[in-house]
Amino acid sequence: MSVPRDGASAAIPDAHAEIAARERQRQLTKPPGSLGRLEDLACWFAARLRDPIPGIPAAEVFVFAADHGVAARSVSAFPQAVTAQMVENFARGGAAINVLTSFADCRLEVVDVGTVRNDALPRGVRDERIRAGTADLSVMAAMTVDEARAALAVGERCACEAIGRGARLLIAGEMGIANTTAAACLICALTDAPAESVVGRGTGIDDDALARKRDIVRRALARVRRQPPPSALELLAELGGLEIAAMCGFYLEAARRGVPVLLDGYVSAAAALVAVAIDAGVREWMLAAHRSAEPGHVVALEALGLRALLDLGMRLGEGSGAVLALPIVYAALALHREMATFDEAGVADATSAQTRAP
Amino acid sequence: MSVPRDGASAAIPDAHAEIAARERQRQLTKPPGSLGRLEDLACWFAARLRDPIPGIPAAEVFVFAADHGVAARSVSAFPQAVTAQMVENFARGGAAINVLTSFADCRLEVVDVGTVRNDALPRGVRDERIRAGTADLSVMAAMTVDEARAALAVGERCACEAIGRGARLLIAGEMGIANTTAAACLICALTDAPAESVVGRGTGIDDDALARKRDIVRRALARVRRQPPPSALELLAELGGLEIAAMCGFYLEAARRGVPVLLDGYVSAAAALVAVAIDAGVREWMLAAHRSAEPGHVVALEALGLRALLDLGMRLGEGSGAVLALPIVYAALALHREMATFDEAGVADATSAQTRAP
Repeated sequence: MSVPRDGASAAIPDAHAEIAARERQRQLTKPPGSLGRLEDLACWFAARLRDPIPGIPAAEVFVFAADHGVAARSVSAFPQAVTAQMVENFARGGAAINVLTSFADCRLEVVDVGTVRNDALPRGVRDERIRAGTADLSVMAAMTVDEARAALAVGERCACEAIGRGARLLIAGEMGIANTTAAACLICALTDAPAESVVGRGTGIDDDALARKRDIVRRALARVRRQPPPSALELLAELGGLEIAAMCGFYLEAARRGVPVLLDGYVSAAAALVAVAIDAGVREWMLAAHRSAEPGHVVALEALGLRALLDLGMRLGEGSGAVLALPIVYAALALHREMATFDEAGVADATSAQTRAP
Repeated sequence: MSVPRDGASAAIPDAHAEIAARERQRQLTKPPGSLGRLEDLACWFAARLRDPIPGIPAAEVFVFAADHGVAARSVSAFPQAVTAQMVENFARGGAAINVLTSFADCRLEVVDVGTVRNDALPRGVRDERIRAGTADLSVMAAMTVDEARAALAVGERCACEAIGRGARLLIAGEMGIANTTAAACLICALTDAPAESVVGRGTGIDDDALARKRDIVRRALARVRRQPPPSALELLAELGGLEIAAMCGFYLEAARRGVPVLLDGYVSAAAALVAVAIDAGVREWMLAAHRSAEPGHVVALEALGLRALLDLGMRLGEGSGAVLALPIVYAALALHREMATFDEAGVADATSAQTRAP
């Protein structure tokens, strides 16, 4: 599957449905604007679900897992083996994303796109392994362009299948020790922001490791500074990760099929930036669920032109922030659909009360 | 029921349960601190539900409705009749709070503490009417101290009954045209903040009405500036509303019984400030669900020492912001209870990985 594909760019939201939804919001029994961003959310979904009063869209969550060669540079507080161990944990239902998807009652699929492991994949984990972890991006391309394409295709297939099952809201999460280093490289490369403002402590590294991580990001960026500048796909292969590429393909395919996505945190934003660099129209299908505690996340969100719904100091990944925001999205849609209008309820609309003489 | 009552002050949270919960958070399969405020929430509830691994507390919502004499001064974008009309709307299930409590699956009770109405109360609305709206606080006391006590007692009874039914998390909302004027008076009087920073547009008034509203708040504050200064209960009678007094009693009783409350927005914060002025220990039982778009809300939250969970530009009242935050609280508790520990999952803890030479 080649990227970009001719005639397969992002769908266009339905402006008419959005206008009709905005008009409905004005008629609901509340002061205009008093539901704040919940009103905007409802109208945003109206345009994308192509219905002025949309139903609650079924959500599916995919966690893409892969390893990173740069982990050997000690840029994480955890050893590389934790990626495979956490995949086991996902399979047994013990991780945060298991609890959250169970709480939100949405389907979760765990996809191994390339972890380093000695034993067989645990049952229930989807095998889409492209290679056993990337190469060390500080000294060479993390993967070939063909491998990046293959990882994109994994995400595309997952989105496609979920939509086939009826999902109308898609979430991608990730697991990959050292993947905030790869994400930082991509965010820097795609926003021109300096490493100081984009590289953070990830899982919780100390000052020495942070300095090392920044240095590695700078070296990787220097490596890809060439003329003509690399394409988004080439940057993804040079600096990315297999799970980041899969998320990127997932976002691209969702947008082509006209299905909105709820972005998670820092790594998710890096994948989103690559997707938008490949096809700018993809941005129209993205909502930012939360603002990560990782300081560079805000750089990525600003470049995407997105404002997060939640700001709770989370920095876990796995899709956890996105699934946490699901009830907010669903509540906004339930309010939009189920509240009475002023006419239905026999309630007086905002009148000229305020202009009457006291 | 007199306030304060001897031997009936706020309960004390269980510090041991909180310490044990904090220790559990360190063992769960995630980088320490990576769930941000969700970790703090879980530990906060552990102390208050007196259990290191608490279950999900059943929540109940009460909406207290009453009218305000100051509405005659045209300080709202809506006419006074809307209070009674919205009570009808609550009774028929058409308001935002109906949709949200239904979505969150929690019990809702609507309590009329003193609306102005010509017809009978709609079925299903609890009749606790003390008087048909307050007097105009810009020129005289809104109510007598005895009436304020009676309204406090309404809230106390509601909290008491909910706890008797098994509720372990309580939410109070309100409906009362012009009640942001009363709330602004109380917030100014209890924080010494100037009217300019506390008085906002409420349901959406224009510049003229805003100037009028500020002037009315200043006049009311001048009226109660006397020596010795009025007590919190006297301020509540002078400047408050019947629904605000009921919310205040609701918060006081919840704290006495050791049951946490989730504060809603601006008017809720005013009631919370009065409750804390009556008994400082009540603050320990309060969580701020959201930050209202009403600019003075942040003044009240700072005085309460609380940081809101959500910031979505809402300014509706009814308890809507608090119920919207419920799934966040519940998710935090589900994560705390259901996630696997590092030991259980066989996942390596944060190691000295970051200190190994690259």
